[in-house]
Amino acid sequence: MMGLRWEGNRLRILDQAHLPHDEVWRDCTTADDAAAAIREMAIRGAPAIGITAAFGLVLAARRGDDLQAAGQLLRSARPTAVNLAFAVDRMLAVGSDPDRLEREAIALRSEDRISCADIGRAGLELVPDGARILTHCNTGALATGGDGTALAVIRAAQRTGRLDHAYCTETRPWLQGARLTAWELASDGIDHTLLVDSAAAGLMRSGGVDLVIVGADRVAANGDVANKVGTLSLALAAAACGVPFYVAVPLSTVDRATPNGEAIPVEERNPDEVRRIRGTQVAGTDTPVWNPAFDITPAANVDAFVTDAGVIRPPYRGWPFG
Amino acid sequence: MMGLRWEGNRLRILDQAHLPHDEVWRDCTTADDAAAAIREMAIRGAPAIGITAAFGLVLAARRGDDLQAAGQLLRSARPTAVNLAFAVDRMLAVGSDPDRLEREAIALRSEDRISCADIGRAGLELVPDGARILTHCNTGALATGGDGTALAVIRAAQRTGRLDHAYCTETRPWLQGARLTAWELASDGIDHTLLVDSAAAGLMRSGGVDLVIVGADRVAANGDVANKVGTLSLALAAAACGVPFYVAVPLSTVDRATPNGEAIPVEERNPDEVRRIRGTQVAGTDTPVWNPAFDITPAANVDAFVTDAGVIRPPYRGWPFG
Repeated sequence: MMGLRWEGNRLRILDQAHLPHDEVWRDCTTADDAAAAIREMAIRGAPAIGITAAFGLVLAARRGDDLQAAGQLLRSARPTAVNLAFAVDRMLAVGSDPDRLEREAIALRSEDRISCADIGRAGLELVPDGARILTHCNTGALATGGDGTALAVIRAAQRTGRLDHAYCTETRPWLQGARLTAWELASDGIDHTLLVDSAAAGLMRSGGVDLVIVGADRVAANGDVANKVGTLSLALAAAACGVPFYVAVPLSTVDRATPNGEAIPVEERNPDEVRRIRGTQVAGTDTPVWNPAFDITPAANVDAFVTDAGVIRPPYRGWPFG
Repeated sequence: MMGLRWEGNRLRILDQAHLPHDEVWRDCTTADDAAAAIREMAIRGAPAIGITAAFGLVLAARRGDDLQAAGQLLRSARPTAVNLAFAVDRMLAVGSDPDRLEREAIALRSEDRISCADIGRAGLELVPDGARILTHCNTGALATGGDGTALAVIRAAQRTGRLDHAYCTETRPWLQGARLTAWELASDGIDHTLLVDSAAAGLMRSGGVDLVIVGADRVAANGDVANKVGTLSLALAAAACGVPFYVAVPLSTVDRATPNGEAIPVEERNPDEVRRIRGTQVAGTDTPVWNPAFDITPAANVDAFVTDAGVIRPPYRGWPFG
């Protein structure tokens, strides 16, 4: 897990707001610090913020802080990704012994690493030879405890020689694609091209993409998917262009307690994320902005889920769904 | 026409790369200067670059430069918008007398102003009371000789009390929506909200948009539309969400000599437009980038054209099409 280091009584987080230009590490010694790192997106990605919250609770236990309050704080740091709430619940169920909590957090991280590997392997059955794969946002080693979710499938395709090319969307407003995914792909020596989010439809329509694969922050019981804003746009374009659209998630991202996409809370973030880019003003300082961090893609637009328990095709009924 | 001033032997262009933050005027005294302003997008928008080229030829004639060569240079400054080629052809047909050319350029500008007004009026029949209208890129007073194309319809809706709200997409990579359209809307006192391009699909799916209206850089004889990259994505999302999708153009944007969208040359611009935003690096300096300036929306996705000769509904056969 490249963006998080656990040092027993300190959690160090690589601040993703500064990547790929600067490597800035944030030290967290309290659950508050961990919650702030999640809220400010120093670390992001559904599995990664779950793991961060788990270690945040270890820090709280070591200090003798109120674990329920710490859990509540961490859980509310970001509302959409269900992994965060799941991780907090799992940790709180362990009790209050710091050493037991630490073992649980480490186990959670290890399990996620294995999940990523399983997702990568499972996804290969959907990848044709010479595949040109388009992905959105960052779902890689910065977002998970291992190789990633959607990016694990791209990495597995590369390792097995099936990948021709990866396309990554820049992912406004936070530019996870331009800043993080392009960097991970370059580090792995994967042939890739960056494009603005809105160019993806034209690429698909011209026959340049064999499949789209993305991650998710929460999958509802009916298979509706909350993921980074822009996912719905890609899913609709893929459907119109006859390009398969897949969602790669660990089973822990499926929330059977949420009946459908309408019941998923969609976080709206600070307008300045749109008005300013890395400190540069790009719109009027008081221009009204709508800045949802996620959108909902209906289950009907998902051609398959790639999970750590294998590929799941429609209809999305019964385990692991509702 | 707010972005261009003709002073007899000098053309002054408001450099749109610096808006809305700084008001920088560029002086053009040769056709070369005018071509550079078009190429570097100091002025953009299909009608506006046609008008700029027309005045560029007046400058060439005043200096005794080779008009055919100047016309070729101006025509090739940007390949997609057909208005540019049409304006050059029309000017060259006038001959080489500088005063006659000047009158022709001024006439072209005046006609475009009237076209804009006609488009605005014509579009009203497609605008319901309390309309929430989404638009893309900038199609306003900075892009034309008058009120705009799609923006003329929004302005007419505002003037007649039918407009509830305008949504403008930021329009990566050049941010025409964030920088120019939001500024024009604010100047006119129109209630508006800025959103990243990829958020539009979610807004449409949630029922927040009554119609989408955009401009175009070239309409082929079969009704296929070349417009700012991201237009196809909006059209596909609109179709999937049952939102009408309209294209507002003067008839001079319909190119009967281009049979269909595949025959329209799509300009690809400098990768640094994606890697850097107003001088701020957002991706690796050598990250491979695909940066098309336009995409092609099939005629089948256009619910109507709003033209200076009225609203045209499918099928798009016969005048003004092929």
